[in-house]
Amino acid sequence: MLVVQKYGGTSVADADRIKHVAGRVLRRVHAGDQVVVVVSAMGNATDELIDLALSITENPDPRELDMLISTGEQVSIALLAMALRAMGQEAVGLTGQQAGIYTRAQYGSGRIARVDADRVKAELAAGRVPIVAGFQGATEDAEIVTLGRGGSDLSAVALAIALGADRCENCKDVTGVYTADPRLVPEARQLKDLTYEEMLELATQGSQVMHNRAVELASVYNLPILVTSSMVDAPGTLIHGESQLEERNRVRGIAHDTDVAKITVRQVPDKPGIATNIFEPLAEAGISVDTIVQNASAGKLTDLTFTLSRKDLRKAEELMPAICETVGANGFVSDGNLGKVSIVGVGIQTAHGYAARMFRALFDAGINIELISTSEIRLTCIIDAGRVPEAVRALHAAFELETAE
Amino acid sequence: MLVVQKYGGTSVADADRIKHVAGRVLRRVHAGDQVVVVVSAMGNATDELIDLALSITENPDPRELDMLISTGEQVSIALLAMALRAMGQEAVGLTGQQAGIYTRAQYGSGRIARVDADRVKAELAAGRVPIVAGFQGATEDAEIVTLGRGGSDLSAVALAIALGADRCENCKDVTGVYTADPRLVPEARQLKDLTYEEMLELATQGSQVMHNRAVELASVYNLPILVTSSMVDAPGTLIHGESQLEERNRVRGIAHDTDVAKITVRQVPDKPGIATNIFEPLAEAGISVDTIVQNASAGKLTDLTFTLSRKDLRKAEELMPAICETVGANGFVSDGNLGKVSIVGVGIQTAHGYAARMFRALFDAGINIELISTSEIRLTCIIDAGRVPEAVRALHAAFELETAE
Repeated sequence: MLVVQKYGGTSVADADRIKHVAGRVLRRVHAGDQVVVVVSAMGNATDELIDLALSITENPDPRELDMLISTGEQVSIALLAMALRAMGQEAVGLTGQQAGIYTRAQYGSGRIARVDADRVKAELAAGRVPIVAGFQGATEDAEIVTLGRGGSDLSAVALAIALGADRCENCKDVTGVYTADPRLVPEARQLKDLTYEEMLELATQGSQVMHNRAVELASVYNLPILVTSSMVDAPGTLIHGESQLEERNRVRGIAHDTDVAKITVRQVPDKPGIATNIFEPLAEAGISVDTIVQNASAGKLTDLTFTLSRKDLRKAEELMPAICETVGANGFVSDGNLGKVSIVGVGIQTAHGYAARMFRALFDAGINIELISTSEIRLTCIIDAGRVPEAVRALHAAFELETAE
Repeated sequence: MLVVQKYGGTSVADADRIKHVAGRVLRRVHAGDQVVVVVSAMGNATDELIDLALSITENPDPRELDMLISTGEQVSIALLAMALRAMGQEAVGLTGQQAGIYTRAQYGSGRIARVDADRVKAELAAGRVPIVAGFQGATEDAEIVTLGRGGSDLSAVALAIALGADRCENCKDVTGVYTADPRLVPEARQLKDLTYEEMLELATQGSQVMHNRAVELASVYNLPILVTSSMVDAPGTLIHGESQLEERNRVRGIAHDTDVAKITVRQVPDKPGIATNIFEPLAEAGISVDTIVQNASAGKLTDLTFTLSRKDLRKAEELMPAICETVGANGFVSDGNLGKVSIVGVGIQTAHGYAARMFRALFDAGINIELISTSEIRLTCIIDAGRVPEAVRALHAAFELETAE
């Protein structure tokens, strides 16, 4: 089997963990697999480099910031390659550029334009384990570009696709994807598998297991991803495209997020251009809006509510008076202390009874629902932030997620 | 004037010093000069990276070690470029590869094969200050290779030559080259200028102002080097090829070194092949031999003495019994507690009285001379390590170096 293994910063945080990872890679090689490794920067190395930049200037040049923080992964690949060589296994550290990961010159948020995997293939053919720096690529002019946070997941998936690998393994400090956060729900159970869509909804809703861009890319090429432990030998959770419908039509997991703020624009006249006039100024200020709910009836005044990250609330509040004036609204109200809980599963949108069961479970727990939003495979309720742990437990019990599939 | 400025690790050891260096560069640019900057890794960064490698394995792979330690300079160039940009000056950090410094794949001790300065010229033409990572280059296949300790000096000189720069400025934590180490001789005076040869002899004899390979390279292309302060505005010392004979024929400075060991091979039969049989095994063990003295008379037994670094003494002592047996010598004696003092100056070898004056000064100070060696422009005496400071002061006084030239 040809496999791309990705190890995050926690898994390579110090010399002992790097040697541990080398030992894991070596066992896979001895078992007859071809292994390509993608690594992140050690522990908090990236944050420390950013702090160093901020000690020079509040507003570091993006190109130079990429030049700086890309050194974090370069350190990791060198150390892991050394560790493998010290164990008698030929290995070679490759920067993003050397590994043929090409991007355009979008410093700090590069998109992978193409992967030229010839060098990696040649190293594999020569019996060496290629250790590739995640999170980075280079332009055709050899300018170093980073892929943004979570970019190492993307490097691993892109490389696996270019190599035609059998799968990508995301080796983490958890053993897989759970039905809910085990810190909130002790009965939470590890899932054997998930569809890409389910993984995306779980990730978006706050379970940071795998970066969304990476899951989306894997989904396009139907590349299976195994989320597994970098520490212990455990089966992991397979993310793939094969829908097993008879098992699917049910809730697979509960996602949650306690970082939600809400702004309601009151008594907005219902006419064209309102949404543009509200959301363009927010977007220009760099504020991401999540859920938007508007119950418009032609010709009447209506309330429009949207949610955003708590950290953006103050900035949004400063912009709101001008926005309200532009759209002719009767002011706004905000709440910075919200969270959300979601049930996720292919088919729940079309099947009967899931929504009702969710609302009943929250009602029985005495939890008030502020907003509701839905996707194909997800149903989300915005609730009070302090009630989120309770809500997750109530939903986990209501959908009997503790019982094996 | 087009100038290449090199700043060592001490000059960029923290954020404040980096901003200070940026300010200095900016003033030069505002004064109308074209400035290219070469920087080393911050403070002890290189040593810390080496320690990290040693925490993985006692014997790190040389390619991966270069991959690792080259990140030190990459951090420096990014931070210095950020600092200049924050001051409103366009600047661009360039790795050795991006700056077109090409080497062969001699990891850890790369030699510069060629410099393609097109990118650096283009950045200058665009009004940007190129900040180049010292100590590193890349092969034609984009493999990262470091140039060995002191390699940043070499990067700066090689780049200055490729650019046709007016001079290379080596900006340090000293203000220039002195007649002797000012910590030993309070009267020591800064020299206005020196020839390349004088600088080489002073450097070899322990005054680590500028790396020898860099001075040799500058000498071949007749590139003037200004050794100057990175902290204060001071005139510095110019190293160049113009010999001003009427001023030269005299002692320019005193060099010293307190790290000397000596081995004497006793009663060696004087026959062909002896030197080979003694020095080949030492060279194979990685031991560098410095001075060698042999007073051979045809057909007789003679003593052969050589000096080496103190750190290599034990290893050499282990090899000596076998060597003595091979050459038929009557054993060996060693002394690990020696030092050396040298007088340096173009013309002193051919002029009368310098040697006699040196020996007289040491004799008057009651210092015994163990060994004498000479070059074109240098006269060195090996003495007891503990007497070195006294010897330097005695020689400084004897040759009246405290008086202006």
